[in-house]
Amino acid sequence: MKAGTLMAGEVAAQPSILADLFEHRADIAAVAERVAARRPRFVLLAARGSSDHAALYAKYLIEVLLELPAGLVSPSTTTLYGAQPDLADVLWIAVSQSGGSPDLVEATDAARKQGARTVAVTNTPDSPLNAVAELSVDVRAGKELAVAATKTYTATLLGLYLLIDAIRGGDGQAAAEIGTLTQSTLDGVATAADEAAQRYRFVERMVTTARGYSLATALEAALKLAETSYLSARAYSGADLLHGPVAAVDSETGVLAITSRGRGGDAMRDVLTVVHGRGADVLAVGSAVADVPAATRLPVAASAEEVAPILEILPVQRLALALSLARGGDPDQPRGLSKVTRTR
Amino acid sequence: MKAGTLMAGEVAAQPSILADLFEHRADIAAVAERVAARRPRFVLLAARGSSDHAALYAKYLIEVLLELPAGLVSPSTTTLYGAQPDLADVLWIAVSQSGGSPDLVEATDAARKQGARTVAVTNTPDSPLNAVAELSVDVRAGKELAVAATKTYTATLLGLYLLIDAIRGGDGQAAAEIGTLTQSTLDGVATAADEAAQRYRFVERMVTTARGYSLATALEAALKLAETSYLSARAYSGADLLHGPVAAVDSETGVLAITSRGRGGDAMRDVLTVVHGRGADVLAVGSAVADVPAATRLPVAASAEEVAPILEILPVQRLALALSLARGGDPDQPRGLSKVTRTR
Repeated sequence: MKAGTLMAGEVAAQPSILADLFEHRADIAAVAERVAARRPRFVLLAARGSSDHAALYAKYLIEVLLELPAGLVSPSTTTLYGAQPDLADVLWIAVSQSGGSPDLVEATDAARKQGARTVAVTNTPDSPLNAVAELSVDVRAGKELAVAATKTYTATLLGLYLLIDAIRGGDGQAAAEIGTLTQSTLDGVATAADEAAQRYRFVERMVTTARGYSLATALEAALKLAETSYLSARAYSGADLLHGPVAAVDSETGVLAITSRGRGGDAMRDVLTVVHGRGADVLAVGSAVADVPAATRLPVAASAEEVAPILEILPVQRLALALSLARGGDPDQPRGLSKVTRTR
Repeated sequence: MKAGTLMAGEVAAQPSILADLFEHRADIAAVAERVAARRPRFVLLAARGSSDHAALYAKYLIEVLLELPAGLVSPSTTTLYGAQPDLADVLWIAVSQSGGSPDLVEATDAARKQGARTVAVTNTPDSPLNAVAELSVDVRAGKELAVAATKTYTATLLGLYLLIDAIRGGDGQAAAEIGTLTQSTLDGVATAADEAAQRYRFVERMVTTARGYSLATALEAALKLAETSYLSARAYSGADLLHGPVAAVDSETGVLAITSRGRGGDAMRDVLTVVHGRGADVLAVGSAVADVPAATRLPVAASAEEVAPILEILPVQRLALALSLARGGDPDQPRGLSKVTRTR
């Protein structure tokens, strides 16, 4: 099989997968209704890897749309140190495409016993994680064969958006056109992503950066580029970047900046003025790329800001695929990776 | 002034600063008493940059020692999106050496108005952050002149440990010898850190990794190396590293691994076996460096696991200083850095 065939196929399948998940939003709303009935006061999110970035996206949704305090949990405080916090009034959302990470399963089981309402958000409804959680959201992306998570990532974001919006009584309206927007974004960057891969053929270090909802995209972009193309990529919030790491940004650095319409994207303009002034090569991705100084732009269909991360990662997936191939690799067979970690 | 003089002086001052802060633990216990009286049910931590790593350390302490759920907040959900969550029963701890970051000040002010008990942990008792917070912990490190945070970082860790231990009624016993342990750790690595700097003179990419309490050290190590020596350094939890990014680890990669005695360090052994097997150059730092495969070892004085991060960062500070000088830089004058960010 040609290198990258699996990943390319799964990237291309996203418009129909996301449209299908939106159509099945009533299943998610039923879960949301049971969550809302318990009136959670705090939300904890547990995840690893790409799912951790989806969890960060959910954290912003929870803080802004539900106005509830939320935190990403460190499963190791339970699995390594045996902590037994009182979790009454807590909503615990465990996010994992495979539902098979032993530490998440153990931590979620413990959370339920400590009184939390537990929800598993997975792509594997019969997983061990679903077995220990009280409620489950199936993100319906179909089995993911490529090692790099693509369709499960975007489906997980959409599943989380639909869940959280439904908890406040919404019907997922901001995602109503998600299938069409996904298709037009993928179509729109087909050539540009290949051209960007040529430009970054020899890049050794990249910084990815964003603010607000899009911070999840910056983190996922860094992981995707690192795991498919072996380049050194690190994500920073735009605010944190100026706090110190900008010292390491120079003309040898590629800066992948997420800039979509909305408050997060607006707040990136000052950051990019500084970065651009240091001579960095800026690659802008998002629905507001025209507004910032950049050498390369990968535009994304415009959307409500709270669903923009579902779309922003699409050009990055295409770039990661093309860059991996341009560098002689095979993103379907990265060195030393398996799909489920067995850490505790 | 000779390059690195400020940073070297502040690194060397840590034993007396930490011993002094421990002596003043009653001031912190008085704050803890007022916090405990309100019986918080959930803890939120707000910080940026190095202080964000101190906040992560505090999160582990809170989850394990207080058995309360805790989360790191994203100030931008307040400052960019205007979220107004109900924060009754919430303890809000804002961590900032300068106490001057406008977004932290604004988010802390908002948190207090939303009903949270607010505590500022700073090195600047008359800062704007202290002015808006209800309670304050002064970490007493003295004015920090070097741009890279060193003494304020360890003093902040100790201040957070003393605060959290006192909330549960402890008297900071695990840190009773902190001044002596700090001195012996610095003395013990004086030569070895310089030798390590020679070994890593030309390294371009480093991964830093740890588990449990020590994850804060891995994050701070990556930041310190990036901001003083401009190398590309990225931190991963040992669990997350195996979940994907290990694909980018090869014989060109330096892996700085924190391995101290205790459950976090124990859980790193499997991770390092994998990393070592991929040919990576492992630099082990901690009180259990003898137990893992490594090319270079920077030993740290043994301590209770929950205070180990205060000690583990010391050899890394020395390494960052020596590496910056070896590469012809001046850690006191990094390119494009100032001490306080003005982001919102």
